[in-house]
Amino acid sequence: MNTCSPDVGTPIVSGAVSSGEATKPEPVELEKGARIREFRKKFKIADIKAGPDQGLNRLGENLVVRGWVRTLRVQSSVTFIEVNDGSCLSNMQCVISSDAEGYDQVESGLISTGASVWVQGTIVTSQGSKQKVELKVDKLVTVGTSDPSFPIQKKRVSREFLRTKAHLRPRTNTFGAVSRVRNALAYATHKFFQENGFVWLSSPIITASDCEGAGEQFCVTTLVPTSREATDSPVNAIPRTKDGLIDWSQCAMCCQAAPVMVPTPQPKTVPHLDLHNAFGSDIYLHDFFGKPAFLTVSGQLNGETYATALTDVYTFGPTFRAENSNTSRHLAEFWMIEPELAFADLEDDMACATAYLQYVVEYILENCKEDMDFFNTWIEKGIIARLSDVVEKRFVQLSYTDAVELLLKAKTAFEFPVAWGCDLQSEHERYITEVVFGGCPVIIRDYPKDIKAFYMRQNDDGKTVAAMDMLVPRVGELIGGSQREERLEYLEQRLDDMKLNKESYWWYLDLRRYGSVPHAGFGLGFERLVQFATGIDNIRDAIPFPRAPGSAEF
Amino acid sequence: MNTCSPDVGTPIVSGAVSSGEATKPEPVELEKGARIREFRKKFKIADIKAGPDQGLNRLGENLVVRGWVRTLRVQSSVTFIEVNDGSCLSNMQCVISSDAEGYDQVESGLISTGASVWVQGTIVTSQGSKQKVELKVDKLVTVGTSDPSFPIQKKRVSREFLRTKAHLRPRTNTFGAVSRVRNALAYATHKFFQENGFVWLSSPIITASDCEGAGEQFCVTTLVPTSREATDSPVNAIPRTKDGLIDWSQCAMCCQAAPVMVPTPQPKTVPHLDLHNAFGSDIYLHDFFGKPAFLTVSGQLNGETYATALTDVYTFGPTFRAENSNTSRHLAEFWMIEPELAFADLEDDMACATAYLQYVVEYILENCKEDMDFFNTWIEKGIIARLSDVVEKRFVQLSYTDAVELLLKAKTAFEFPVAWGCDLQSEHERYITEVVFGGCPVIIRDYPKDIKAFYMRQNDDGKTVAAMDMLVPRVGELIGGSQREERLEYLEQRLDDMKLNKESYWWYLDLRRYGSVPHAGFGLGFERLVQFATGIDNIRDAIPFPRAPGSAEF
Repeated sequence: MNTCSPDVGTPIVSGAVSSGEATKPEPVELEKGARIREFRKKFKIADIKAGPDQGLNRLGENLVVRGWVRTLRVQSSVTFIEVNDGSCLSNMQCVISSDAEGYDQVESGLISTGASVWVQGTIVTSQGSKQKVELKVDKLVTVGTSDPSFPIQKKRVSREFLRTKAHLRPRTNTFGAVSRVRNALAYATHKFFQENGFVWLSSPIITASDCEGAGEQFCVTTLVPTSREATDSPVNAIPRTKDGLIDWSQCAMCCQAAPVMVPTPQPKTVPHLDLHNAFGSDIYLHDFFGKPAFLTVSGQLNGETYATALTDVYTFGPTFRAENSNTSRHLAEFWMIEPELAFADLEDDMACATAYLQYVVEYILENCKEDMDFFNTWIEKGIIARLSDVVEKRFVQLSYTDAVELLLKAKTAFEFPVAWGCDLQSEHERYITEVVFGGCPVIIRDYPKDIKAFYMRQNDDGKTVAAMDMLVPRVGELIGGSQREERLEYLEQRLDDMKLNKESYWWYLDLRRYGSVPHAGFGLGFERLVQFATGIDNIRDAIPFPRAPGSAEF
Repeated sequence: MNTCSPDVGTPIVSGAVSSGEATKPEPVELEKGARIREFRKKFKIADIKAGPDQGLNRLGENLVVRGWVRTLRVQSSVTFIEVNDGSCLSNMQCVISSDAEGYDQVESGLISTGASVWVQGTIVTSQGSKQKVELKVDKLVTVGTSDPSFPIQKKRVSREFLRTKAHLRPRTNTFGAVSRVRNALAYATHKFFQENGFVWLSSPIITASDCEGAGEQFCVTTLVPTSREATDSPVNAIPRTKDGLIDWSQCAMCCQAAPVMVPTPQPKTVPHLDLHNAFGSDIYLHDFFGKPAFLTVSGQLNGETYATALTDVYTFGPTFRAENSNTSRHLAEFWMIEPELAFADLEDDMACATAYLQYVVEYILENCKEDMDFFNTWIEKGIIARLSDVVEKRFVQLSYTDAVELLLKAKTAFEFPVAWGCDLQSEHERYITEVVFGGCPVIIRDYPKDIKAFYMRQNDDGKTVAAMDMLVPRVGELIGGSQREERLEYLEQRLDDMKLNKESYWWYLDLRRYGSVPHAGFGLGFERLVQFATGIDNIRDAIPFPRAPGSAEF
């Protein structure tokens, strides 16, 4: 049963509205600033409690709060309703006495944890120690009741359990705070790059380019039926060549399925032949893209094409790995930030990565104080001090060769033996960041070329490449970057050495044929940054709807 | 042949670097502001020419410009090299005489269109009419030569041709300008929502939830081999049930393929059984997600889960349609902006959409003047006036019923007949925006419920729903939104009426069980906004790497 507040839904646009007969409303000139006033900013709890006064500057104001009931506490003469609207961690404590309008809804049990309410009242000084102000209620309206089965009651519930309630978990303190800090980190990311003249680039998600190779990829196809028919789909419906291979040139969708409805701009079926003809009669169609297509694992190569035209660019978008890594550090779908800088070398790259990380961390320390205090108390003790250190200190830089020497001298017994040329394992990275440098971020540079990707620039020693990894405590590798090989002959040699198909890299090699420039960039997994900045242990709690093996609900 | 500037690559981080022996560099305290100074902001052409003085304030300064040669013009005693770095539309005109260091590179033909250069010189008043200042060259260095096959020479090339050179087209005036305006629109989007207290939400890209239904979807699978083996993949390798259907519960990847290497944090193979056991022995694995999974067509339903916890949220991410719409208005992969407002009705929704559009349009008119002048001259005459109107005028609102009446009275003969209950075709939308209202954006609201989605809120008339579409000239429907049905019983009835499976909507229905609130939102296709704001005709030119039937290159 839901009852709806009469105040929710008052029209606020006074322009022409339907009159029931065909009138012709005229566009009228807006007086300056009118449109800003007209877009009502709802008064949120953060608007009331934010700022150094924590609401004391609003004493005596009569206003409306809208939100969800966290708890309800009945005392002798008054009832305390804690209302949260997600705009901040704090609830608004609403104090209602029996003479207030709508008090009957408290008595009748209509209002319970999870219900949504509309509350009008006056801001007064709070007697409690947890807040400076509270709302003395004049009028209470239940907007939507909450079924007693509401799974997030006051008692603590585990984060594992909450993962099965991903649609409700943002209503908890922890996930509300993670959502806000995640949002602030994303916005700070855009601010940092925009303020430094970078252009945001949307790199493609679906790619038929087979030159990524940075990890296992998901196949994207219309060869199997879309949506609801997928579970009743016979294997034999998949087109095959006479050798029994999947025939990507066949068009399951337009040749084998029913005609396709195109809903906009005007609904009509597209005749198969028209579609085929559009590509010329000598080209067979086709899985949707006419060949196998996959979800991107990185936007870097695409980013390089724009960096070598616009100088400095960055991507911020989802990337995918079809790896069976069912760990607390891996997601099948995650967001990546990948800046690419032209006329830049590894030093510029490290300077950019450092400045970026310091900027976004400082941003949340300044703009998410309440949420950060919450993490500091409940999620990771001391996280604020740890993050402040990141902002204030110079990051340590050392070469891979020096790092290996430090590890060889270590008194610690490692599970994986260390030798020059081996990839560093997380136990090694932890030893360096946590034991050697006491929790400071560390940048390791100049890795052996044989353990790094083909596109990294070869150093003059012939053995190492201009690569760098930034390691941070708790999370390990947060950033990985490199200067890119801008010399055509070196890059082609590297492709040959690694038995990669040069033809499929034609456009990437073109960047070295036409005005090649030294350039560099890095990649940062956004959810790892969220973990680093909030202290959240499991990466599945750092993204709203995590995707992992066997898990793509919601 | 590439020659590399000695100045590119000067170390700028003075911290500890590799010394060849194992030292232990110490993290040192940074003096305040040092990290900002250390992140070198390259001096870009926009830095020089931006501002009202167009560089006149820098007369006499000696500085370095880095970029790509657009044209080279040899006159009697001097040579003019137009250098562009993508930071703005303008080139820097570099004037070099025979006594400048590096002039031999001009004579030898090393420098040609497409080459990258490093140029040092003094800012002087320009004699030409096209710019206020130019660079009198002291020293010229060729960073990377350009092969004579460089496809973007001075003569004009068609946009169709440039689509086949998507890796090089940002080096043209048109695509450089589109990239910068697209970037500005994206940033303005974030600024608008952040300044109004919205939280950015990453809605999931891969979804096994079969309750989207807004369009044909791409299947995401690991049942067919990933990456390079895809073209040699036998159909028979796809697991099947005894009825011959695709067996989504079988694990092609971990049961049939070679053991999977997990590269980080430490390389090891994951035994199949471990992986299976992780999910409990009674659960069969599995295509990667254990059931059919698809690419999202909209983040709206996920957005609603967060709006009913955090009040106001927005998504900005890629969405997908596997529709065979091979038109200049459709992409298979496009970016969508989907705000969702809690405690809000259709009026709030329209006010938000209007304020949003006015904000972002005003932002580019103020921040992208040079690029907008370019579009106004070369792409769509009068676009600046059209956009200024959008910012300054109240949008027209009328009901669907009124719109139908206007169409019935029209003298125009429509291809598609009009009657109450029909979906409006683009010819109808064009008539309303262009003929009736002379190019003003129009919001049509309260559509018949039978032509709209199940989640839209039923109006009291029982016939219409609280939906709205914003139509703009040239592009047609730019924004589509609605108030959502917050009443559980109405929503369940609607699912039944439309024969949709209520079980699969369990989490969406939960939002109405636990503290339901009136809420509303809209979706805006970002590339359509780019078209609207730049005048670019074909949507494939409004995104860096367009995906369409048969086309997923780069």
